Amino acid sequence: MTISLSAELWPDVQPEAARRLMLAAVESFASRGYHATTTRDIAAAAGMSPAALYVHFPSKAALLFAISKSGHEQTLTLVESVAKRDEPAKERIRKIVEDFVSWHARRHTVARVVQYELQALPEQEYAVVADLRRRIEQHMREVIAEGVEQGELSVGDLRTAARAVLSLGVDVARWYSDRIGKTPKALAKEYGELVLRMLGATA
Amino acid sequence: MTISLSAELWPDVQPEAARRLMLAAVESFASRGYHATTTRDIAAAAGMSPAALYVHFPSKAALLFAISKSGHEQTLTLVESVAKRDEPAKERIRKIVEDFVSWHARRHTVARVVQYELQALPEQEYAVVADLRRRIEQHMREVIAEGVEQGELSVGDLRTAARAVLSLGVDVARWYSDRIGKTPKALAKEYGELVLRMLGATA
Repeated sequence: MTISLSAELWPDVQPEAARRLMLAAVESFASRGYHATTTRDIAAAAGMSPAALYVHFPSKAALLFAISKSGHEQTLTLVESVAKRDEPAKERIRKIVEDFVSWHARRHTVARVVQYELQALPEQEYAVVADLRRRIEQHMREVIAEGVEQGELSVGDLRTAARAVLSLGVDVARWYSDRIGKTPKALAKEYGELVLRMLGATA
Repeated sequence: MTISLSAELWPDVQPEAARRLMLAAVESFASRGYHATTTRDIAAAAGMSPAALYVHFPSKAALLFAISKSGHEQTLTLVESVAKRDEPAKERIRKIVEDFVSWHARRHTVARVVQYELQALPEQEYAVVADLRRRIEQHMREVIAEGVEQGELSVGDLRTAARAVLSLGVDVARWYSDRIGKTPKALAKEYGELVLRMLGATA
C-alpha cells in the first residue's frame, strides 16, 4: 500500500490521502467483501481516523463508486482510443484485447472490485457505471461489425461475440495471479491471438 | 425458494431441510457476500431456527463448503463424462463447452457463489475444492491435447487455451441473467462454436 501504487492506479485522484483511502477500500472489499467492510476498517487500513475519511468520501458507497467509476472510465478510454483509429478492424481488436487483458491482469485486485461489486452500488451510481459499460460493449460491437463488413472477420451473433471477447478479458481478474508464471503482457498477446481466431479472422 | 428448486440443484443432498438451508445460504451469500452473512440470517431465510441449522451444518463455512464442493463435483462430472467418450476431440470439446456454459447460465446465482467465494473457504476445505478444479482443468487440457495430436485442433500454449475455454464458461455466471433474451441452451450452442474456432478447429 505505497504512495506510488495508488498514484499509478488513480493518477487523476487528488489529494494523495483520497487515493490512499481508495487503495485501503480495495484491499478491504477484496478480502472481506463490500458489505462486511466498515468505513472504520478502511480508515484504519489507510492509517487514518474515521473523521479524516469523511473529509474525502461521505460514505462507503462513495468510495466504491469512486473505484468503480474510475476503473470503468479507464477501460472505456483504452477501448475508445483504439476503436477510433484508422487501422484494419482486426488490428484494432487485437490491440483492444491486449490492453484490456493486460489491465485486468496487472491490477487484478482492483479489477475484481470494479467487476464484481457492481450490485452493491446505489441506484444512481449504478446507472452511471452501467452507462460506461454499455459504451464499452458498444465500441466492441462496432469494431467487430466493421471487421465483418470489410470481410476481415466473420461471426454468428454480433452481440454474443462482443460479449464473449470482453468476458474473456474480465475473467482474467478472477483467476490471474503473479504465481501463474506469465506476465500480463505475455498473456495479453496470447489472448489477442485466441480472440482473432474466435472472430474468424482471415489470415 | 421452493422445494423442487433445491432438489434440482442438489439431488444428492438429504434431508430436504439441508437443501433448504443451502439454498438460503446461496441467496444470502449472493446478495450480501459470505462475510456479511450470519448463520442467523441463513436460518431465518430458510424459515428455521439457528439451532435447527446446526443440526445439519456445524458452521457457516460448512455450508459454503457444501455448496462449493457440490458445484465443483457437478461440473467435474459433466466434463469427465464427456472427456472419456470415444468421439473426435472436437466433438467432445463442443459438448463439454455446451454443458459447462449451460450449467453456469442456468444456475448463475449458485455458480457465482461456487466460483467467487473460494477464498473464504477454510484451508482444508479449500484444498478439496482446489483438487476438483485441477481435475477439471486437467481433463480440458487432455482433450485439447488429443485434438492437437489428431490434427483436429491447433493451439499456441495448451495451458492458456484450456484456461481460456473454462474461463469463458465461468464468466457466464457473472453476466448471465434471464433478461438477456437468450436461453442457456442457445447461448451454449453459440459458445461451442466460438470455442472451436478459438482452438483452430478444422472444418
